[in-house]
Amino acid sequence: MPLLQQTIEQIQGIDRQIEADARKYIDSLAKPPQSLGKLETLAIQLSAITGERFPKIDQKAMIVMAADHGVYEEGVTPNPQSTTVFQTLSFPKGTTGMCTIAKVTNAKVVTVDVGVKEDLPPDAGVIIKKVKYGTDNMAKGPAMTREEAIRAIEVGIEVTTEEIKKGINLIGTGEMGIANTTPSAAVLAVFYGCDPLEVTGFGAGVGSGGIEFKAEVIRKAIELNQPNADDPIDVLAKVGGLELCGMAGIFLAAAANRVPVVVDGYISLVSALAAYKLNPHVKDYIIPSHQSEEPGAKIAADLLGIEPMLQMNMRLGEGSGAALAFPILDAACSMVSNMVTLEEAAAILTK
Amino acid sequence: MPLLQQTIEQIQGIDRQIEADARKYIDSLAKPPQSLGKLETLAIQLSAITGERFPKIDQKAMIVMAADHGVYEEGVTPNPQSTTVFQTLSFPKGTTGMCTIAKVTNAKVVTVDVGVKEDLPPDAGVIIKKVKYGTDNMAKGPAMTREEAIRAIEVGIEVTTEEIKKGINLIGTGEMGIANTTPSAAVLAVFYGCDPLEVTGFGAGVGSGGIEFKAEVIRKAIELNQPNADDPIDVLAKVGGLELCGMAGIFLAAAANRVPVVVDGYISLVSALAAYKLNPHVKDYIIPSHQSEEPGAKIAADLLGIEPMLQMNMRLGEGSGAALAFPILDAACSMVSNMVTLEEAAAILTK
Repeated sequence: MPLLQQTIEQIQGIDRQIEADARKYIDSLAKPPQSLGKLETLAIQLSAITGERFPKIDQKAMIVMAADHGVYEEGVTPNPQSTTVFQTLSFPKGTTGMCTIAKVTNAKVVTVDVGVKEDLPPDAGVIIKKVKYGTDNMAKGPAMTREEAIRAIEVGIEVTTEEIKKGINLIGTGEMGIANTTPSAAVLAVFYGCDPLEVTGFGAGVGSGGIEFKAEVIRKAIELNQPNADDPIDVLAKVGGLELCGMAGIFLAAAANRVPVVVDGYISLVSALAAYKLNPHVKDYIIPSHQSEEPGAKIAADLLGIEPMLQMNMRLGEGSGAALAFPILDAACSMVSNMVTLEEAAAILTK
Repeated sequence: MPLLQQTIEQIQGIDRQIEADARKYIDSLAKPPQSLGKLETLAIQLSAITGERFPKIDQKAMIVMAADHGVYEEGVTPNPQSTTVFQTLSFPKGTTGMCTIAKVTNAKVVTVDVGVKEDLPPDAGVIIKKVKYGTDNMAKGPAMTREEAIRAIEVGIEVTTEEIKKGINLIGTGEMGIANTTPSAAVLAVFYGCDPLEVTGFGAGVGSGGIEFKAEVIRKAIELNQPNADDPIDVLAKVGGLELCGMAGIFLAAAANRVPVVVDGYISLVSALAAYKLNPHVKDYIIPSHQSEEPGAKIAADLLGIEPMLQMNMRLGEGSGAALAFPILDAACSMVSNMVTLEEAAAILTK
């Protein structure tokens, strides 16, 4: 069976009994029930995902999918396209914004070229799994073929599965790809069935035509390519991006292997939504992070039924919000492992 | 000069030149300007507080002020008053909710008895600086004398200054005191000039009379004691609490010593507001954390002009939200220290 199909079929929902047991245990700890709010919800989710009452997330990785976008030539962003290469080569050096956040929890950064426009040096510390030298311009035709989209998703699955085999037990999703809020908005507009303007934002900077023009490019691409909203792979292929596919693969592989996966901002949320549409159980494995500044991010989060924890006004991308959520998960695990139950506390104090 | 007066006079505003330089430096890093949002604001604030371009917060402490409340006897909370003793003795054992969060960043927990109703064992790891065996019932008279309030503030100043002398360079504020959302709401209602109902919430559980009754107790206490809104010490003495005074002392001492201090939820915000009213420069040293569930918390934060970063639906108290903000500050420092400037990045990549 092809890898993608096999992975989709492998995904099962979390264990509701373990979830209920974890809730009961956390309610027995020395505090008013539910007074630690989302910290408790996270701890319960981690238990239900891993099957462990005291879940461990001591081997963290940020997996970054990097790719370029043909739609760049329409002028949807003022940033030079070469930034994709520049930043992709910077991740292994640990000098990007996300890397410095990941450092706080000793998270590993895994960088993957799934479709950067140029050839990268083989010794740069980037995993080269290039499916294509950037997508084609979706304003003139499909961004990629269906086969290429499947291959890019499988790149995400392969890299993630490999990391899990090496012991990684918490994954964060990151990306790099100049212009990638444009395909993200396109994919979301198709899934959500709305006019692109509703989900189009400033990104890392918008071209001289402004948000209206960016939305118009997306509108044209959707009209031209006619993606089938009920077929996530068709949508990703026609108006998506190679790193969106790669990230969808991360979510699928994490869920298939029962490993928690932290979503980042807009691009990551849209990729998560595509994965969710391939198998709805994926949702059980997704952990929220920050509230992105992009208007579509809230819509994508609502469609996934997740609520961000961090209000940081961040819009860097790279996975920076996901990395910033890692220590909150550490706190959730520490709470379960180190708090005493009311009963234990009473016993200790009356000794 | 008395310690309180001396400390208030010692506090100066942060250095606006260092602040501007930090902003300029952070704008030169390899990212779209301001794309890391509040992480950048925090880093700039830490620089402006400490005077360092690369601020260090590697010696963290949560300082917990514990005390009891005479107004407990009015039935404003269903929780047993003995919980104050129980939890105060649990902090040094590291088993409370906040302690397990503080552990994630190796933060020390310093527990201070500033007014617990019972005598605590001398070897329990709690610093005994008891000003009074709990406040008097403010529904029947002033909670404490002006002298007691000043002494309790000075306890906060003494303990905090001592910790700073030992090398602590980041402080979080914590508290323990059954019924303490009641005096917090009273103090805020006086400062804000509103009806107590507007700032009265559920706390850790509300008595059988509900929130209306709790607000009515506060209303009576204010009418009876007539605190002077322009005299923060008068307000704290008449309708406040010993741990609120102690926490106000933490904020004052941190500001006087140019050390960043993280505010927690409702009780902590009200204490910060009292300190701010004693010297408005205190505000420069206060770092936000989480959005408390208490309705008054938003009002207090707005009065201080600070915005929470964490939306966790937490209402445990103890300083749990402040402790959860510590790793975000670590991320802010890591960003400044480990990101390269655009210029440096270009130089590295073209080598």
